[in-house]
Order: sequence, then C-alpha cells, then structure tokens
Amino acid sequence: MSAYKQLEKLFTQLSHLEHLSAIANWDEAAMMPEGGGEARAAALASLHRISHEKLSDKKVGELLKQAKNETLDSPWQTANLKWMQRFYENANCLPADLVEALSNQRSICEQVWRVARAKNDWQSFLPHLENVVKLTRESAQIRSHYFGVAPYDLLIDEFSPGLNSKIIDPIFSRLKSLLPALIEKIITKQKTLKITEPKGPFSIAQQKELGLALMRAIGFDFNHGRLDISHHPFCGGVPQDVRITTRYNDHEFVSSAMGTCHETGHARYEQNLPKEWISQPVGRIHSMALHESQSLLIEMQACRSREFMQFMSLQTKNYFGEQPGLNSENLYHLYTRVQKGLIRVDADEVTYPLHVILRYEIEKELISGAIETRDLPDAWNQKMAEYFDLDTRGDFKNGVMQDVHWPSGAFGYFPAYTIGSLIAAQLFFSAKKTNPNLLSELASGNFVALYNWLIPNFQSHASSLDFTELMIAATGEELNPDYFLKHVETRYL
Amino acid sequence: MSAYKQLEKLFTQLSHLEHLSAIANWDEAAMMPEGGGEARAAALASLHRISHEKLSDKKVGELLKQAKNETLDSPWQTANLKWMQRFYENANCLPADLVEALSNQRSICEQVWRVARAKNDWQSFLPHLENVVKLTRESAQIRSHYFGVAPYDLLIDEFSPGLNSKIIDPIFSRLKSLLPALIEKIITKQKTLKITEPKGPFSIAQQKELGLALMRAIGFDFNHGRLDISHHPFCGGVPQDVRITTRYNDHEFVSSAMGTCHETGHARYEQNLPKEWISQPVGRIHSMALHESQSLLIEMQACRSREFMQFMSLQTKNYFGEQPGLNSENLYHLYTRVQKGLIRVDADEVTYPLHVILRYEIEKELISGAIETRDLPDAWNQKMAEYFDLDTRGDFKNGVMQDVHWPSGAFGYFPAYTIGSLIAAQLFFSAKKTNPNLLSELASGNFVALYNWLIPNFQSHASSLDFTELMIAATGEELNPDYFLKHVETRYL
Repeated sequence: MSAYKQLEKLFTQLSHLEHLSAIANWDEAAMMPEGGGEARAAALASLHRISHEKLSDKKVGELLKQAKNETLDSPWQTANLKWMQRFYENANCLPADLVEALSNQRSICEQVWRVARAKNDWQSFLPHLENVVKLTRESAQIRSHYFGVAPYDLLIDEFSPGLNSKIIDPIFSRLKSLLPALIEKIITKQKTLKITEPKGPFSIAQQKELGLALMRAIGFDFNHGRLDISHHPFCGGVPQDVRITTRYNDHEFVSSAMGTCHETGHARYEQNLPKEWISQPVGRIHSMALHESQSLLIEMQACRSREFMQFMSLQTKNYFGEQPGLNSENLYHLYTRVQKGLIRVDADEVTYPLHVILRYEIEKELISGAIETRDLPDAWNQKMAEYFDLDTRGDFKNGVMQDVHWPSGAFGYFPAYTIGSLIAAQLFFSAKKTNPNLLSELASGNFVALYNWLIPNFQSHASSLDFTELMIAATGEELNPDYFLKHVETRYL
Repeated sequence: MSAYKQLEKLFTQLSHLEHLSAIANWDEAAMMPEGGGEARAAALASLHRISHEKLSDKKVGELLKQAKNETLDSPWQTANLKWMQRFYENANCLPADLVEALSNQRSICEQVWRVARAKNDWQSFLPHLENVVKLTRESAQIRSHYFGVAPYDLLIDEFSPGLNSKIIDPIFSRLKSLLPALIEKIITKQKTLKITEPKGPFSIAQQKELGLALMRAIGFDFNHGRLDISHHPFCGGVPQDVRITTRYNDHEFVSSAMGTCHETGHARYEQNLPKEWISQPVGRIHSMALHESQSLLIEMQACRSREFMQFMSLQTKNYFGEQPGLNSENLYHLYTRVQKGLIRVDADEVTYPLHVILRYEIEKELISGAIETRDLPDAWNQKMAEYFDLDTRGDFKNGVMQDVHWPSGAFGYFPAYTIGSLIAAQLFFSAKKTNPNLLSELASGNFVALYNWLIPNFQSHASSLDFTELMIAATGEELNPDYFLKHVETRYL
C-alpha cells in the first residue's frame, strides 16, 4: 500500500474517533444529565489522547515524507496530503507540557469566567485570563518560529486557514471608515417605522413545528440529522448525521426561528459535502470563516430578505394564528432592525462588524504585547466610545467579559464572523446574478435555486482549494467587501 | 508504578472507550436518524478495534504475569486482576480471522433473520444460521481446549460467569418436573377471575409521566440517567449516566409501565455500584444472570406484588382518571395472569422458565453436535408440544425463529433469564426476612427498605465475588430454586 493510502487509512480511523467525540459532545449539550459530566469529560479526554497519539506518531511523519514523493491521482489527494501535513505538524510542534498547561488554564479560566461574569467581577477573573494570554503568546511564539508566520496570523489561521492580517487589515479599515456613518443614517431612517411586536405566548411545541417547517424549506435532510434543544444553539454531529440545536422562550419566537435558520445553513453545508471524501481532511471544513459564511448566507442574505418574510409570515400565522405582528412587512422590519448595542451576539448585521473589529484590534495588540491583559477594559471602553458612542466603564459583564472566546483561549477566532458575513454577501450576489428568480423563489420558501448554485460552485469544493482559490472559483474574484456594503445599502437605505 | 497499577490505568482507559461506545449505542437506538447508521457502524467498529488492540497487546500479558507476583492491597484488587486476566485471554485465545468471520456471519444472519422472520421463511434463513452455528462450535472448541472447560459451559460462562451446566441441570430438571402441573392448577384457578381491561386511549405524554413517577418511586437517580423511547426497551449508558428506554402504545399502558419498572431495576443496579471501582472490571457487572436478577427482583417480586398494586392504582388514576380497570385488585390480576403462549417475551413468570428450558436443552444438543441446525424446528415443535401442549409446526415466526439470540450468535445466553428469576426470588426472600415491613412499604411506593437491604448485601459487591460466593454472602446459601417455587405457590395458589 502506498504511503499516501496508509495515511488515508489512518485519517479515516481518526474521523471515526471524531464521529464519536462529536456525538458525545452533542449528547452532553442536548441530552446528558448534569451528574454525567465528570465521567463524560474523562471519557472524551481519553479519546482525544488516543487520537493525538495516533496523529502525532513519528511513523506518520515518515509516511508524510514518503507520500510527498509519490504520484498522487488527483488534486484532491494533493490537497488532502497538505491538510494531513498541517494536522501532523500542529500536533507535534508544541511541547506536550505546554499543550497540557494551556488546555488546563483554558478550562479553569472559562469556569472562573462563568461565575465572575455574572458578578461583574473583573478582578478575580484577571489573573486567570493573564495565565491564558501568557501561555497563548508562548505557544504562538514557538509556532511562529516553526512555521515562519507572525504569531497573531498563526492564531487567525488556526480558526480560518488562508486568512491573515494582510487580507483582513485593509478590509476591516474600509468597513471601519464607512460603517459608523451608514449606521447613523439607517437608524435615523428606521425611526419613522412603526413596528408591532408579535404577541405571545408562543407555545414551545408550536415553535418547534415552525422550526422544523423552516428546516424543511431550507432543505435539511432529516434522514441525516435532527433538531434538539440546548442552552447554547450549535450545529454538531457529523456530515452523515448533523445535530442542530436551538432554545425556546415562550415569550417570543423571533430569535429561535431565525437561529434555527442559521444553524440549518451550517447543517446543509455539512450535508452537502462530497460523500467520497467525507472521512478525509480535504472533505471536511476546517475554516470557521467558511462555515460561518454558509449560516450567514442562509440567515442574513436569504432568510432576512423581504421575499422570505412572505413565507415566514405564512408559516408563523399557520402555527400561531392570525395577528398584525405576523404580517410580512412587519416581520421584515422586526428582522432588519439596526441598533447600537453593547452585546455582540445580539447585534444586527450592520453593527456586527464593528463589534468584531474592536475585538480584532485589541487581540492583535494583546498578542503582540503592545497592551497587557490588565489594560483590556480601558482599550475596550475607549473603542466602544469611539465606534458606538457607548459608555461601558465599570460594566465588565456587558463589556470586556461578555464573550467566551478569550477565557477559553480562542484568540484569532473573531475575524471569522465578519469575514464569513462578507463571503456570504459575495456568494449571494453571484448566485443571484446566475439566477435572477432566486430571490423571488424564497418568497414561497423555495431554496432549490439557491442550492443549485451554491452546491456545485462552493460547497462541493469542501477543503480542496485554498481560501482565495475558492473565492475565485465560486465568484470570479478574491474576497471583496463591496458586496457586503452594497447589500447593506440596498437593504437598509 | 507496579504492574497491577499499570493495568488499572489501561482498564480505566478501556472503560472510557466503553463509555463512548455505550452512549453511541444508546443514541443509535433512541436518537439517531436512520441515514446515520452506516457512519455510526464504521465509527464503532474502529473504536472496538482500538479497544481490542489495546486489550490484546502482548505487553498486557507481561504485566498480568508480573502482577501475579505482586502483593495486592485488597481482595478487590485480587478479583480485579482475575477479571483482567479473563478479558485478556478472551481477547487472545481465538485467531483474529475466526473472530472476524464469526462477527461478520452474526451480523449478516441477524439482518437476514429480520426479513425472513417476518415472512415465516425458515429455508432462506437456515444456511445463514448454519454458518453461525458452525463458527460458534469451532470457536467454542478452541476455547474449550484452551480453558479446559466443556464448549457449551464456556458459552454459558461468557454471558453468566460462574454458571455452568453442573449448576443449571439439576435446577432446570426440578423446575421442569414441577412447573407443568403448577401451571395447570393456576390456570384453572384463574378461570374464575373477572378481569376488566383498562379502557384507553392512554396519552403517551401521560404514560411518560407515569413512567417517571414509577422510576422516582423505585429510586432512579435522574441526575445520573434519563428515560427515552426506543423500539426495543433496554438499559444502556454507563453507571454515572444510565439510559433506560421504553416504548409506548396509546391503546394500553400496562406493558410499558411494567417495562419501565423492569429497566429501572437494571438501572439502579448500575447506579448503586461502588463509585471507587467504577472504571475497573471488578466494579462492573459482567453477568447477565446477575443483572437480570435485579430487574426481575424489581419487576416480578416487588412491582407485581399485591402491595405495590395499591401504589400503581393511585398513580394510574392520577394520570388517566378514575375507572374500574385501574382498581388495585384488578391491576393485580392483570399483572399476574398466567397463560401458555408461543412467545417467550410475552410470557408470565410462571411459564417463562419452560420457554428457557426448552431453548437450553436444544442449544446444548446443538453445540455438542447431537442435533444439527436443520433439525431445530422439529426439536422445537416436539418440546412445545411436550411442555405447553401447543402446536408450532410450520409457524417458524412464532416458533424457532422468534428470538434474536441465535441469529446473533448469543448461544448460552438464555439460562441467564431463568437463573436471574431464581436469584431474584431468593434475594427477595432474604430481604423480607430481615425487614418484615418491606412488602407493606411497597404499597406506598416506598422502596427504601428494599434497597437498604439490597445495596449492602448484594449490589455493593459488584463483581468482587464469584457467583456462588455472592449468593452465600447475600442470602446465606447457594442458589436454591425453592424460593422461586415457594414464591409461585404463594402468589398464585
């Protein structure tokens, strides 16, 4: 058997272990009683140790060397080998002690954060965050030396391969220069709108039926996935069995319904990945920016469109009965309200990028050492005042402590949200150009035309192309923020 | 680190992999969409291969040899080492090819059986069953040579360690000589009873609430487990997170409610195992006879008692409203009806042992070669006529093809059901002797007295004692069928 084929076999086995880990993680969030947590954590830790041992084995390094001299059958195999090399190096380039220390400090810090955030207690959280930052810098430094890439770029690349500050900086500075004025204009314009809040209660059983109807419309394959409840909505499981979750509140259906559309966007990406590569690295998505683009395309571009609101109105009236708040035009206004707020996860698509840019700028300086962990609140407050004209001094809970990313050590993750949003706009523009009826078909909840474009042009490439190659293959050009800006102007002005 | 401690570490890791396998199996039965099946099977196969590789590694053999010369701290460690030795030898004593062939033939035969049984098609099923029987005989032969134990005894011991035909034969022949006459007497006596069938429909939501109420009464710990629905009810998961399932039918609640009690009996055994040994072989239960004894103790001895029916009556009236069919005395008659029937799983506790004895006698001859696979229907029909006076000629579906055990290669499993039932009667007798109020407390759904005896005297021993040692420790004597026979006479005559 060729070295390459031996590697494929190993990575298939690793994908099987990931399958069990994904299902156990889903179970933990959606099904597991609290008392099962300790045993589950121990079981998953053993599984991850075994995976890591198999992946980091020196024999794998030998096989990778041999495989590079073999003639491969297709560009997919070549791309696959690149991913294997990347995973092997990532598994080996850091000393085991450092990996363990970072993993421990992250989970301690996240636990402390949960309690401290609720109490608005920055001081007791600070030393734990300092530990995480220190170890993150240290490991980024080692990897920077190994890969010859700047430390913060490495962190970005970890979550969104192919992205780096050279690509992001000019895009973010363009958004930063245009969005504040745009936001003011939109808010002024929206002041004249009369929006009726739909009147509840909305039974959870009916909300679940609504969610399932939306999933069916978007094309979720229920033979290969399911919908459940968890505290934090997510898309988990495996491509052959995608588990999405949402949460309900009987006072309102608006956020749960749109959250379900968002997760269905993620889910269909998984379900549409090419079957023959599903057990190999090249067949899965390792970029948060790409994955987020597919949920945002469905949520922001398709489901918050004026057209789709006709379908949403029909469906909500079907499940909750007739009332003025459920009229199509009213729902559209509800779902496209722009407001400056403190909280990123509650932000609309227009203000969201500023939340991300704020974090991006701070992270960059934090990793480079230009600022220290203790300076984070000041940096935060200053930028919130600058971008949103909001005062967050003393409000750590809704300020610098609002996100799980930093306490859990996920530095470099944030850009993925906004880059995903830009990709989504660019893809949707290309899709509409190819099929001018695409938008009007959404009015009857028909996503076939959209996916008929999206699958062959984007999703079916899986991870066989680099980020920029993929953007060009799908849209004819590199990532370009104009499409997002144009979308905002068209929808909101 | 001592060799013994190194082994403990390995078996802890194996228990973590079993944890993930147990949760994935539960998920497959209770949650997974059908389309996820293929990927799940592949993932589990990889996990089992990894477990098997770790367990059968020659290094484990070396450690076992060394550990035998080490001084261990407690009888638990000594017993633990015995179990480790047993698992290691079982993993190594058969050629890998034979293990794989048997595993493949079992799963093919089970698949064929599902289709063929529905069509009453013995002929197309026969060649597959012949394959399984041939390979089972072959592997039993090899292991018999290795362990110096008769082939069929090895098969029994695989499912119920410590049991063998020397223990079972005299017990079964006693039951066989007494039960047929007892059954006739009981049936005659019950002819005079007027039983009212409770009138449905019984909503599934209410049935679930009833099931949860029964579980709470029996003492199920919901912080370490949950109740769900599956096609075949079972008790799965891990001791720290026990997953039981049931199935509902809105025409009747009787079987689902009692099925939930049965599974809760299994579940509490798991939940009561000593925490400090939970990751080691000695801390888990490897005997189907022992496990079945705990579900049958709860179902047959406790929950079908006249006393418990007072609680059951209150609960069912609470969830389904007042009706004559739900009166305590009527429910008791419903739940203790004795009938001769074709199907083992539908049998009452008095006729059940004859179903098992029939299979035991046939299996024994099949494994020894005294009869061949093609002779099974004749052997079956003859014994059904002899023990039940029932004609099953031509009815393969409700005759020789009714159980999954043989198609799936689980020869040697059946005795566990009846031995479990005898153990249950013997334990319940001892428990009542110690606490005369135990039965009357069941009338208010109070199981505390029962478990206050059962946990220290039986469940807390886990697998630290041999079968016979355990029976003596718990009840002061070896397994004795008199308690079961006495129970039948007291309850039914």
